Amino acid sequence: MSQQNLEPLDIGAIREEFPILEREFDGQQVVYLDNAATTQTPDPVVDAMSDYYRRYNSNVHRGIHHLSQEASIAYEEAHDRVAEFIGAEGREEVIFTKNTTEAENLVAYSWGLAELEPGDRVVLTEMEHHASLVTWQQIAHQTGADVEYIRVDERGRLDMDHARELIDDDAAVVSAVHVSNTLGTVNPVAELTALADEHDALSVIDGAQAVPNRPVDVGEIDADFYAFSGHKMAGPTGIGVLYGKQELLEEMDPYLYGGGMIRKVTFDDSTWGELPWKFEPGTPPIAEAVGLAAAVDWLEEIGMERIQAHEEELARYAYEQLDAEGDVEIYGPEPGPDRGGLVSFNVEGVHAHDLASIMNDHTVAVRAGDHCTQPLHDKLGVPASTRASFYVYNTREEIDKLVAALDDARQLFA
Amino acid sequence: MSQQNLEPLDIGAIREEFPILEREFDGQQVVYLDNAATTQTPDPVVDAMSDYYRRYNSNVHRGIHHLSQEASIAYEEAHDRVAEFIGAEGREEVIFTKNTTEAENLVAYSWGLAELEPGDRVVLTEMEHHASLVTWQQIAHQTGADVEYIRVDERGRLDMDHARELIDDDAAVVSAVHVSNTLGTVNPVAELTALADEHDALSVIDGAQAVPNRPVDVGEIDADFYAFSGHKMAGPTGIGVLYGKQELLEEMDPYLYGGGMIRKVTFDDSTWGELPWKFEPGTPPIAEAVGLAAAVDWLEEIGMERIQAHEEELARYAYEQLDAEGDVEIYGPEPGPDRGGLVSFNVEGVHAHDLASIMNDHTVAVRAGDHCTQPLHDKLGVPASTRASFYVYNTREEIDKLVAALDDARQLFA
Repeated sequence: MSQQNLEPLDIGAIREEFPILEREFDGQQVVYLDNAATTQTPDPVVDAMSDYYRRYNSNVHRGIHHLSQEASIAYEEAHDRVAEFIGAEGREEVIFTKNTTEAENLVAYSWGLAELEPGDRVVLTEMEHHASLVTWQQIAHQTGADVEYIRVDERGRLDMDHARELIDDDAAVVSAVHVSNTLGTVNPVAELTALADEHDALSVIDGAQAVPNRPVDVGEIDADFYAFSGHKMAGPTGIGVLYGKQELLEEMDPYLYGGGMIRKVTFDDSTWGELPWKFEPGTPPIAEAVGLAAAVDWLEEIGMERIQAHEEELARYAYEQLDAEGDVEIYGPEPGPDRGGLVSFNVEGVHAHDLASIMNDHTVAVRAGDHCTQPLHDKLGVPASTRASFYVYNTREEIDKLVAALDDARQLFA
Repeated sequence: MSQQNLEPLDIGAIREEFPILEREFDGQQVVYLDNAATTQTPDPVVDAMSDYYRRYNSNVHRGIHHLSQEASIAYEEAHDRVAEFIGAEGREEVIFTKNTTEAENLVAYSWGLAELEPGDRVVLTEMEHHASLVTWQQIAHQTGADVEYIRVDERGRLDMDHARELIDDDAAVVSAVHVSNTLGTVNPVAELTALADEHDALSVIDGAQAVPNRPVDVGEIDADFYAFSGHKMAGPTGIGVLYGKQELLEEMDPYLYGGGMIRKVTFDDSTWGELPWKFEPGTPPIAEAVGLAAAVDWLEEIGMERIQAHEEELARYAYEQLDAEGDVEIYGPEPGPDRGGLVSFNVEGVHAHDLASIMNDHTVAVRAGDHCTQPLHDKLGVPASTRASFYVYNTREEIDKLVAALDDARQLFA
């Protein structure tokens, strides 16, 4: 991607929309570097949801009265807005779930449980988040399918030779993370979906760390399914998205049952309604859909290319600063086009949790733990790592505070 | 319940917390009588969520930094608050789902799919909402269990002789609605759970139309599982609750997989974490939990006995006014202790949707349709009904507007 012609961001103006970034603890302003866990929510998104509750809150599914009409239109158009944002063909391909995890489970249940057979191979990667790793592992156990993991090499990249080995005619599913939430690796997902397609395997991409941070076009990636969350893209909690190719979604039966997703119910049996509602049983996350649509507007107003460029620059800066310390082990690729906006690391002799605790004494908010990638941490040979992850409102100065806090950690623990 | 000593509600003061009730269409103020679909959300609840986003939004699961600590505590304490509200023994028994429907599906998948066998009987009622009817029907189909429905009599009450017939030693599950969202019937749920218990059957109660409207004590009802939603109790969309007895929840495996619910994950297998998190994979509805806790505070401040008394009085008034019209067929029991705060009806010669449309011309918001109880409507011999459902902010004058609009409908359609 060409970044040279992008107008720089007005970070000051952007930060004004996030009152939480003004919070102080012990007189020090918070430095929020836990964006891969959840991003902060700008005022226009919060206001859109408050406005929903104060002006047109109602249940959807086209009730006849004014409020229900307004709520239904907003809810349906939120699907259109998200479809447009990711390059889907229409609202039929956009299902609102409760989070990325449920989106992954939807595919594993509705497609996997129905289609997988003993001897089928489910191909994951060693860097999968538990949301897809545990889900496919358990559904594979239930169906008798085998699970294989594409190896991660020493620089945190997928071993694509191994990928080509595993994705053969026995492969039934290929499920891979777009951007690793631990390593920061940007995977060649279009290459993986092409391999899957070549061997008639289903492709599922976990885009939770990609859609918030870079332009994503599901048509270009050509995945059968693509999952992400509202709360990691300046949107609300309580909503996730599953993109799916319409012809696949049409063929699949829903796995959750209830109102709003049926065509006809008798005491004996039931038939299913139209897409995408077929996969959205019960009262859906209406206010959250309104908030997500507002978040998409907010992100597009800034521009995803600019957001990506800003995050990559911060990640490069953080990587270089941490690397220069000498006693910091950084996981994942060197800065470049295949690293996203996060850096996970360990400091020699300091446990990740102790480091995060010291950081917190400096009001630097980072995440310590296995980041829902336990098997990957086992492979890295560490129980945990500390992760700093960046978003559109972060600055170099905040990274300087992170690096400055390392000295304290060394003095106390190393 | 003794209602004579309850202080009447200050409806004027209550309505001030709902700016949406001031909305006008064509110069007429909205009359919101669609509360069984979703209740309105008072300012303190909306403000609690905005405050979350503006002050302490963060992912939970006990991140080390200040914001995550604050968010984690709020999220966990929301479980305590709900537990206390319904008389559960603690947060271990309170699982946050995305809605009532998902709560029902959780039981059907995690317990039903594992435990049901061919020949087992699943006992539902003819007045079940699709959320439990379709769910148990489909899980029964998958496991080879049989589904039987407790008959509804001519006055919309459960035929308890039939219940005693069906709930014998072949019964594995009894799933019943506490208050019917179509008939308004308040079912003898404690009697049903006792019957289930006598025959070692699991009991599941759909309390979506009960918890918002009356004091509910899950200990007194003694159900194994009890489900309800935030958005029907002055709370937000995007969150539902499954109460479950701890010993049952401990024994059950989760059905949704992901982060935050595991103990240990390897490439080969996974084990599950503590209650209630074991059943809450992925980033949960954090802001929504904060909103739900605020809704519980708001409801308790008013008092559930007073809310129940107010709604029952409105339902009695609406029933009597509609009944006096002569050409209105009302479904469900006569006013009394076994009727909740809603009235579904049809006007002779007028289709329910036409009636709702005329009501909307008068800005009276009612719901027309099958209310997610298609089989019950088939039994009633009508494709649809019009439903007026009341909440704490409604008044007799609003019901008068509903009744006044009937004349227009007759002139146009009858």
